[in-house]
Amino acid sequence: MTESVTIALDAMGGDHGPSVVVPAAVAVAKSHSHVSQILVGDQEVLEAALRQHGGSGIDSIRVHHASQTVAMDEPPSQALRLKKDSSMRVAINLVKDGEADAIVSAGNTGALMATARYVLKTLPGIDRPAIITTIPAIGGYTRMLDLGANVDCSAEHLFQFAVMGSVMAEALDNRGTPKVGLLNIGEEEIKGNDQVKQAARILSQSELNYAGYVEGDDIFKGDVDVVVCDGFVGNVALKTSEGVASIIAHYLREEFQRNLLTKLAGLIALPVLRNLRKRIDPRQYNGASLLGLRGIVLKSHGGADAFAFQHAIETAVLEVEKGVPALIDQRLDQMLSERDDK
Amino acid sequence: MTESVTIALDAMGGDHGPSVVVPAAVAVAKSHSHVSQILVGDQEVLEAALRQHGGSGIDSIRVHHASQTVAMDEPPSQALRLKKDSSMRVAINLVKDGEADAIVSAGNTGALMATARYVLKTLPGIDRPAIITTIPAIGGYTRMLDLGANVDCSAEHLFQFAVMGSVMAEALDNRGTPKVGLLNIGEEEIKGNDQVKQAARILSQSELNYAGYVEGDDIFKGDVDVVVCDGFVGNVALKTSEGVASIIAHYLREEFQRNLLTKLAGLIALPVLRNLRKRIDPRQYNGASLLGLRGIVLKSHGGADAFAFQHAIETAVLEVEKGVPALIDQRLDQMLSERDDK
Repeated sequence: MTESVTIALDAMGGDHGPSVVVPAAVAVAKSHSHVSQILVGDQEVLEAALRQHGGSGIDSIRVHHASQTVAMDEPPSQALRLKKDSSMRVAINLVKDGEADAIVSAGNTGALMATARYVLKTLPGIDRPAIITTIPAIGGYTRMLDLGANVDCSAEHLFQFAVMGSVMAEALDNRGTPKVGLLNIGEEEIKGNDQVKQAARILSQSELNYAGYVEGDDIFKGDVDVVVCDGFVGNVALKTSEGVASIIAHYLREEFQRNLLTKLAGLIALPVLRNLRKRIDPRQYNGASLLGLRGIVLKSHGGADAFAFQHAIETAVLEVEKGVPALIDQRLDQMLSERDDK
Repeated sequence: MTESVTIALDAMGGDHGPSVVVPAAVAVAKSHSHVSQILVGDQEVLEAALRQHGGSGIDSIRVHHASQTVAMDEPPSQALRLKKDSSMRVAINLVKDGEADAIVSAGNTGALMATARYVLKTLPGIDRPAIITTIPAIGGYTRMLDLGANVDCSAEHLFQFAVMGSVMAEALDNRGTPKVGLLNIGEEEIKGNDQVKQAARILSQSELNYAGYVEGDDIFKGDVDVVVCDGFVGNVALKTSEGVASIIAHYLREEFQRNLLTKLAGLIALPVLRNLRKRIDPRQYNGASLLGLRGIVLKSHGGADAFAFQHAIETAVLEVEKGVPALIDQRLDQMLSERDDK
């Protein structure tokens, strides 16, 4: 017997709002009978969207009205102060009040982080929440954090990220003892900066399966399950990898468009190129988790389509079923007391 | 009339030593009659390599003996202290003594940076040298620095990098007033870290063509000519982009190898795929410059082949012809005095 799970959706968030969130919710409802969903946002708009996307008669989806919306470019502090009835804030409140087990939003990342942190609070022992996502790697994928929540991180923060990432990989990927790598560079006389070097010392003395330093190209090799870095570096690495994928796709299109012969070759290679695109399709990795909070918060890409948003909801369901925040809490508690014993 | 240029080559450096450096030097000698080259390293080994690669009779190449070699994994401080007759050190000395106009090495980056800095010294107004390279971008390429020489950078350091990068783009690419972008992330409430924010203020008040913040994916869009960041972030971004290119190539191979039909498609698409490979071939961008020194120092990739090493020598020749260090010196002097006038 699967226990039922309730997910609150910020139905007005993201570049596309209800036109993406509602069909994604309908698709999830049809394929996961144990999942209930609460669409948070403008009641009239959402009911119309439900009718449009064939979701009116679905019992497991209900609408919860919220009168405001957080804009994608709105300063987080302003959202926090002035948007107390936003779809984002109300959806997070549902998690706090125990009406929902998790919240998924495609809205403004900064506002989501600030609001979730303010409403839900961090777990004991966690100074700062972090953003984690999955990145395709040879033979599977790698989880990487932080991706932009924290620009300056101490060694202790990096250690906390490592614990959280390790718990995620173990719980969601069923990997026994996930290998954790610390992102660093190999060019300096004594490698890396002080925080990273100190974090390496803490990690190598911990019970985590610490695999040492990794460099930027190692993220995609699949040698480690979790890559830990500060949010500035992680965000640049993530965006850089998106940029490289785009320029290679651009070159590939240009080369196949060059003349009649290359166009013909492109036509013949089309099924292969489609399979390639499917493999590197970022939509199947959509859904970054905000870890370290007393609740499950998933951030969908702002421009996600319904297929991608559905993946983010399904990741939230999995995190609820595995009880990720409680696992992080236990593990951190255990590791910190082990450290005290030494 | 082209003036003659002399390049000193660390002929023992890199993963392959003389077997790459010597044929590269021979190729340069044959195509550039105004370029003289000094092969620095074990005289016997180098003379044998010259015979083997058809370079014995070339007047513009001469051998300069050096008895030691810096190992690729040797700590820079040890190389500096114990390897005073290394091919790397002796080649750098030739620049200092005015016998050569530039030095090219595929050796240990840390040792090259430490030795070049110790022997040649930095330009006035430059606190730290930086490593710059070219990165393919839509419509051409972007120059990015620092790539690993400096892990922690102040706003003033980032400003100096911006001046040096701007001079490089202007001199080597003949771009009127190069657009300079500052690498940052867009996720934090108030974007980026303190150093980057302060550097943005300095840059926007300077005479540089400062184009504002860019994110990781913008590096490849070609909207700016120069991307400035600290060495930790730059190194991670560079390595990450290599990693993404590798995994896409890996997937592409796998998809074309899937079955007989896809193999046939691959055969037909082969000329197109070869053109693609040529466009993203890192060998044509080989040669990172160590900027901010009183001399021209080029770092070739350690694993470079002769074709790639030749490109690094040619970049050194171009920097000599444009007089890059003097241009940096002038520009920095001018910009700092303008700032004092304000």
